[in-house]
Amino acid sequence: VAEILKVNLPKTLRTLMTDLNVQAKLAAPQFQDIVAAANRLRGTAVHTPLLQSDALNALTGREVFIKPETLQIAGSFKFRGAYNRLSQLNDIERKAGVVAWSSGNHAQGVAAAAARLNIPATIVMPADAPIIKRDNTIALGAKVVGYDRLTESREAISYRIAEETGAVVVPSFDDPDIIAGQGTCGLEIANQIGALGAPLDALFVCCGGGGLIAGCAIAIRELSPVTQIYSVEPEGYDDHARSLKSGSRERADTNHVSICDALLAPMPGELTWSINHRHLAGGLVVSDDEVRAAVAYAFNSLKLVVEPGGAVALAALLAGHIPAEHRRIGIVLSGGNVDPDLFSSIIISN
Amino acid sequence: VAEILKVNLPKTLRTLMTDLNVQAKLAAPQFQDIVAAANRLRGTAVHTPLLQSDALNALTGREVFIKPETLQIAGSFKFRGAYNRLSQLNDIERKAGVVAWSSGNHAQGVAAAAARLNIPATIVMPADAPIIKRDNTIALGAKVVGYDRLTESREAISYRIAEETGAVVVPSFDDPDIIAGQGTCGLEIANQIGALGAPLDALFVCCGGGGLIAGCAIAIRELSPVTQIYSVEPEGYDDHARSLKSGSRERADTNHVSICDALLAPMPGELTWSINHRHLAGGLVVSDDEVRAAVAYAFNSLKLVVEPGGAVALAALLAGHIPAEHRRIGIVLSGGNVDPDLFSSIIISN
Repeated sequence: VAEILKVNLPKTLRTLMTDLNVQAKLAAPQFQDIVAAANRLRGTAVHTPLLQSDALNALTGREVFIKPETLQIAGSFKFRGAYNRLSQLNDIERKAGVVAWSSGNHAQGVAAAAARLNIPATIVMPADAPIIKRDNTIALGAKVVGYDRLTESREAISYRIAEETGAVVVPSFDDPDIIAGQGTCGLEIANQIGALGAPLDALFVCCGGGGLIAGCAIAIRELSPVTQIYSVEPEGYDDHARSLKSGSRERADTNHVSICDALLAPMPGELTWSINHRHLAGGLVVSDDEVRAAVAYAFNSLKLVVEPGGAVALAALLAGHIPAEHRRIGIVLSGGNVDPDLFSSIIISN
Repeated sequence: VAEILKVNLPKTLRTLMTDLNVQAKLAAPQFQDIVAAANRLRGTAVHTPLLQSDALNALTGREVFIKPETLQIAGSFKFRGAYNRLSQLNDIERKAGVVAWSSGNHAQGVAAAAARLNIPATIVMPADAPIIKRDNTIALGAKVVGYDRLTESREAISYRIAEETGAVVVPSFDDPDIIAGQGTCGLEIANQIGALGAPLDALFVCCGGGGLIAGCAIAIRELSPVTQIYSVEPEGYDDHARSLKSGSRERADTNHVSICDALLAPMPGELTWSINHRHLAGGLVVSDDEVRAAVAYAFNSLKLVVEPGGAVALAALLAGHIPAEHRRIGIVLSGGNVDPDLFSSIIISN
């Protein structure tokens, strides 16, 4: 009887497709989906400011606009996509709860969105995730299930939980509602820049699975078609950069070590790639040392706490990787969830 | 001949009065002076955002609005007053330059304003000022003259430099143009809150000499008369709190040690007190441990880098010192210039 009940749970078509792992066949979100997401998030998500630093402008000889998603609920942009997805679940789905896997920022975004919507959440997290991310996820009311990144499959664990509990799987990037939610960050940037005058020459966005940059690209393409959009990735996880060069999805060597725990996706998502390969001008790559220097610069000069994965666009700027022709540029600081020990070691030695 | 030339320098009446140390007899700025200052600062100073944190609201059971002056040029609110003062100097005064004494934030504010206006600046700084403040002041192009806080008089050194060079002395708080400039912070808060709906029940502002809170009080009193304004000071430097209780200016024991290097003024200024004694509802006092906890909270949860002196209002909130009747409150985070070593020791041990 329990089995029959589970099968007969009246899930939305969207959720069924996600559970069956066929999200790639779901259509990419359109601009109006991002506007709809912004309406859902209004009054709930933080409308993060667009900051400028005279010192950074003087240092780089450019006009730099900083989007600090570090100030978003749960410390990263991830709340945007999670809330957009979860707020569209029906009553029965909400009762069954959600399950997600994540090294930490998606975990906290899902946990924070679930808490606001009174939805039970289970997060599958690697045992070596930053402590602050694990603790914050639990503090937000989610149940955390640990796994070993080297020997266990987070997907298998998550789908088993979904099967056992009827919970809805919430992917971290390859999902139209997640992408549309993250795109509200780009929508805000376009509107904020539009109010200030000339459009951006280029926008630089960190890239793991590619959900944030895909959503931003859809919004920016619509509102500011002259703006070039670049992904920024850590060394070893430059799958977008290499895919953009070759024209098809390339896989990174997942044995590489990187300080950017938030950006360790080995390959562009199917759905994100279907968007990114059309909209991105290119992909930049930064070293761990360049990322450390950027985290320290953000501390010393911008007075912002930025985690390594959140600092890659700033790192690309400070390290001189941004093409010279782009004078008026935007960079997204995507998250600020970093352990005190790591942060201290970076700011003391840089 | 040199003496005659110096005496005959056509200084503005304002500057002469400042040089003669009679600023207390200058009239307190009015609301329209703050509006005029805001017009001078427009497009130059950062219009800092007003932030909210769901986590902080949930933790404190209040609606908290955060004004992060950490994001201001040179990392604190001090640029506002300095630019407002320096931009009103005449051509001859600008050529002769400015001199100021400061433990660090006023130093950087004056240096940054002077750099923008092409005015030479000399800053008299204690030898034990935070390294980041000293280095940043020099990086901004100012000449730094060190002194021993225990054996030398910064005022004497500054006025000797002014006499020798014809430079204009720029006081750090007891000056109508400085106060009006700092008041633009309060003007922004009042307008930002006004756009959001109901006024604040109360606003909490750090307090050294009292320039920031005096300027903010004038602006808030005009635009939001229902809002109660409280000073927050570190233990041992609670001269405003004690003065507000007794009704006349009280002096703190300057032998006290405090982590809040930005707030070590031993006594309310004459001019700032003439404003503050009329406008403030009371004064709160926080311990160094409460300040450390606030700095760590800002790192972990708000993702903002706040220096100890900049975190006292947040410390008062987190430590439960804010009267229970104030539900919708504002706190100013006044600066973020903190050495990496101190910051690390705080975030690791809290």
